[in-house]
Amino acid sequence: MSTSEPPSRQDLPLGVFDSGLGGLSVVRALRACLPNENIVYLGDTARVPYGTKGKDTVVRYALACAQYLKQSQVKAIVVACNTVSAVAPAALRAEFDLPIIGVIEPGARAAVEASVTGKIGVLATAGTVASGAYPRAIASFSTRAETFAVAAPLLVPLAEEGWTTGEVPELAVTRYIKRLAGQAIDAVVLGCTHYPILRETIARVVQQELGDHVALIDSGEAAARDVLAFLSLRGLRRSAKESGTIHVRVTDLPGNFGELATRFLGESIAHVKQVDL
Amino acid sequence: MSTSEPPSRQDLPLGVFDSGLGGLSVVRALRACLPNENIVYLGDTARVPYGTKGKDTVVRYALACAQYLKQSQVKAIVVACNTVSAVAPAALRAEFDLPIIGVIEPGARAAVEASVTGKIGVLATAGTVASGAYPRAIASFSTRAETFAVAAPLLVPLAEEGWTTGEVPELAVTRYIKRLAGQAIDAVVLGCTHYPILRETIARVVQQELGDHVALIDSGEAAARDVLAFLSLRGLRRSAKESGTIHVRVTDLPGNFGELATRFLGESIAHVKQVDL
Repeated sequence: MSTSEPPSRQDLPLGVFDSGLGGLSVVRALRACLPNENIVYLGDTARVPYGTKGKDTVVRYALACAQYLKQSQVKAIVVACNTVSAVAPAALRAEFDLPIIGVIEPGARAAVEASVTGKIGVLATAGTVASGAYPRAIASFSTRAETFAVAAPLLVPLAEEGWTTGEVPELAVTRYIKRLAGQAIDAVVLGCTHYPILRETIARVVQQELGDHVALIDSGEAAARDVLAFLSLRGLRRSAKESGTIHVRVTDLPGNFGELATRFLGESIAHVKQVDL
Repeated sequence: MSTSEPPSRQDLPLGVFDSGLGGLSVVRALRACLPNENIVYLGDTARVPYGTKGKDTVVRYALACAQYLKQSQVKAIVVACNTVSAVAPAALRAEFDLPIIGVIEPGARAAVEASVTGKIGVLATAGTVASGAYPRAIASFSTRAETFAVAAPLLVPLAEEGWTTGEVPELAVTRYIKRLAGQAIDAVVLGCTHYPILRETIARVVQQELGDHVALIDSGEAAARDVLAFLSLRGLRRSAKESGTIHVRVTDLPGNFGELATRFLGESIAHVKQVDL
């Protein structure tokens, strides 16, 4: 292929966006499944968080993020944000002729597959819980499944503060998980991209309060597996075999950007740029 | 006065803005000092929080908020947000020919007045701490004072979650206050409008960790006393003696708006409207 030709569709990057840096945990999962894909990540850090905001506001912000990624010529858009995946996919699909892959359907399906009792717990932001998106998605995969969703707003700031183990996160997580006790729940969905950072603590508390047979489902990991399946089926996997690049775009550059980003991504970031939407 | 005449300047409302609903704790303090003033409050709830965002972004948002209040014909603008008071007063004063009263200078002065040792602790958001605004303001009132500022990012979500007393806030507050121990600190500034909601817990922990002689300074209360002094000196207090009204404007209407707003304001809100900036 001559360098003057435009890249073929399969060689375009994947676009990923989130309200902030939490979605980098989804990029981490994508890297594990698809190490040679190039990724453009957009974190709307100037307007983070979305999880506490109203539906219309979130849809407006999501359209702006997707527009930016479209202009970056991506082959598909991964909505790494649970809140956006809960309220905006219809608007995104109506506006853009690109494949749009959210995190809620994959997470819901993985939970239905993992559950024997059909009783599924979901930890998420207030916005995601209020949307009812997880119960809806879970019901679409299993008519007998029952969903118990708990809003856990403190877990995002705990993850960002780096208080991931120890007394404070342990007590906060326990307070939320106790709301799921006594329901025969055997699968719990981490319904926010920040929660994998607290996975160790959440897993311990879930085992303690709900039992050690309970499966912990990371919606971001489930979405990454779906992206792999989608690209393979459509013949859209990148042809080059070398490791892909990650370009990070943020709408605000927080002071502790590097530290936070590394915590979510699990590797350091070479290319970061601030953009205005 | 005939109703067709424009209201005289003293009868115009006070404008108050904040990144979200926390600034209603400053409105509460204003109501205690100035019960007959009309107040227009703007909470930029679609872009809350500011405390984790960069300076340029915060200045841009603050100018938009002040522009809205100017169009609402207010007689003065109270910047209820510590983060904005830390980084944006110069830009606001350059742009608007209205009195601009922030919360940091009043809080700093009250702390200097309360302190004997000259060692002053400040609890604030990451953004306010990074700005260095409190040490600067405190130094401007006392050349011998020394400021110890601690970023306490978890306290905002704790206040919003309503976890204001009990083990989790107690442990989190203790972890932050311990960073002030051993410095002979005898005044601690609550440098964020959310913190008064946690005042009981913070006061108990401060007493326990730093001693019961330590003064707790609420910057919002200090600012309200300054507004009272300013309006009195300039002859700008409202002439009518009946109780003033509070009109609340928000850029996003969160689901639990009423509950949250009441927690900060201490009274229920009659007039609330969503606006686009």
